[in-house]
Amino acid sequence: MRKIYAIGIGAGDPEHLTVQAVDRLNRVDVFFVLDKGTAKADLVRLRQEILERFVTRSGYRVVTAQDPERDRTPPDYRAAVADWHQLRTDVYERLIRDELRDGETGAFLVWGDPSLYDSTIALVEAVLARGTVAFDYEVVPGVSSVAALVARHRTTMNQIGRAVQFTTGRRLSQGWPADADDVCVLLDAHTTFDRFTDQGLWIFWGAYVGTPAEILLSGPLDGSLAEQIRETRAEARKRHGWIMDTYLLRRPQEE
Amino acid sequence: MRKIYAIGIGAGDPEHLTVQAVDRLNRVDVFFVLDKGTAKADLVRLRQEILERFVTRSGYRVVTAQDPERDRTPPDYRAAVADWHQLRTDVYERLIRDELRDGETGAFLVWGDPSLYDSTIALVEAVLARGTVAFDYEVVPGVSSVAALVARHRTTMNQIGRAVQFTTGRRLSQGWPADADDVCVLLDAHTTFDRFTDQGLWIFWGAYVGTPAEILLSGPLDGSLAEQIRETRAEARKRHGWIMDTYLLRRPQEE
Ligand SMILES: C[S@@+](CC[C@H](N)C(=O)[O-])C[C@H]1O[C@@H](n2cnc3c(N)ncnc32)[C@H](O)[C@@H]1O
Ligand SMILES: C[S@@+](CC[C@H](N)C(=O)[O-])C[C@H]1O[C@@H](n2cnc3c(N)ncnc32)[C@H](O)[C@@H]1O
Repeated sequence: MRKIYAIGIGAGDPEHLTVQAVDRLNRVDVFFVLDKGTAKADLVRLRQEILERFVTRSGYRVVTAQDPERDRTPPDYRAAVADWHQLRTDVYERLIRDELRDGETGAFLVWGDPSLYDSTIALVEAVLARGTVAFDYEVVPGVSSVAALVARHRTTMNQIGRAVQFTTGRRLSQGWPADADDVCVLLDAHTTFDRFTDQGLWIFWGAYVGTPAEILLSGPLDGSLAEQIRETRAEARKRHGWIMDTYLLRRPQEE
Repeated sequence: MRKIYAIGIGAGDPEHLTVQAVDRLNRVDVFFVLDKGTAKADLVRLRQEILERFVTRSGYRVVTAQDPERDRTPPDYRAAVADWHQLRTDVYERLIRDELRDGETGAFLVWGDPSLYDSTIALVEAVLARGTVAFDYEVVPGVSSVAALVARHRTTMNQIGRAVQFTTGRRLSQGWPADADDVCVLLDAHTTFDRFTDQGLWIFWGAYVGTPAEILLSGPLDGSLAEQIRETRAEARKRHGWIMDTYLLRRPQEE
């Protein structure tokens, strides 16, 4: 039987790996690295650093594959997403079936926590569902970018007894989510917080959280802080060639 | 200058400690243990296990203090909560000021991730705000009970491009939160999922997640699964004398 691990590796700080993650890394014969294009080369490098630092056994293999790009302007959106999912499943299936011998263990290193805005679990499940290759698999949780962000800001995600929502920039652009006083935003390429200035909110923002390039900004979200974050973000993005940022928006509550 | 760490220790599995947490544990002179009453003795024991397993330096001290109980039926609810917060701040202040010498490092070991439904950060901030004792402090993020839960169920918190909300049992009893398709529920003493049977939802439930006593149940949330979870929960609670459980409710979306 083959064995697959989906291992959360934290969102930038190698020290955010758990003891469990380090243990599992040391049982792996083949690490699968999905290459998502040049901009993310820094992230592939960070994965290599993690292997060098934490894997003490030798003789493991690293297999790199191209993660299929999604067609961003398809004529039929739903069909295109389904096609893309099939293509990605093909890649994962090939890796697990062809790059791993029976009895061997393979691993996908997943950014942050595998449970948040990541498709590794869904793709491994899709391979399992095809029934073309049998394997056991285990998910190793990790510290998410948002957990890392709020720790650096020394604040909590939720206010006492209140709800907190995790959402995307795209969804936030449709308005403040009902029934939540705190909102953690990922995958926002358009500084959507801009639409929420001067409404009594606080923002806790961070880019490259946990890495040496980390930038943190926070405060009452007025126009000038929004502008400062926008400019900081644009400048950093230009300098590094890529950016990963996330933020918490807080509507302060009386207790 | 004194130094304080608020260290996330995961929600039951000692292997969920991060490399950073283990590093910080080994810089600590005094561990503060807040005793929340007899029912939670198992949890205090787990903290001791963590120290024994991961702290390699010797000569650290463990200081236990009584966390003040909240008056659950006060005549004036808001005043009572404020009083309680003051009393707790007093305890934290006393620990940091009187149990730590200048130049020493103290630590609060925080269950799960310090950013989720935990008051340690707020209390340490409140002590800082009083200005009666100067100290540096750092928050070390951890794997939350919810991250551990969904990893064990090998599922994600959010569906692709959708929002997920973290909330309490009490808030969930007011109805399904708007604008969220997945809801992670903590602090639910009343099996509130019961109100959401036969609505096309899925539940991923777990108790004592990450510990040897772990129980997991999941499936389409109909009356019979709700009953099974209720009974399993009641039986386990009786047997152990306490329970910690959490669950994810999912409203499946077409992609
Ligand atoms: C595809 S999602 C993956 C999230 C990941 N599974 C996690 O647990 O953080 C990528 C998004 O996570 C956020 N992110 C990931 N790493 C980050 C970091 N080091 N600093 C800031 N944001 C980060 C950004 O919002 C980015 O758009
Ligand atoms: C005061 S909150 C603290 C949450 C913690 N900071 C975290 O990150 O998980 C306590 C609640 O967390 C959940 N919880 C904590 N540990 C758990 C475990 N091992 N299994 C199931 N639920 C747990 C339960 O819902 C419990 O009521």
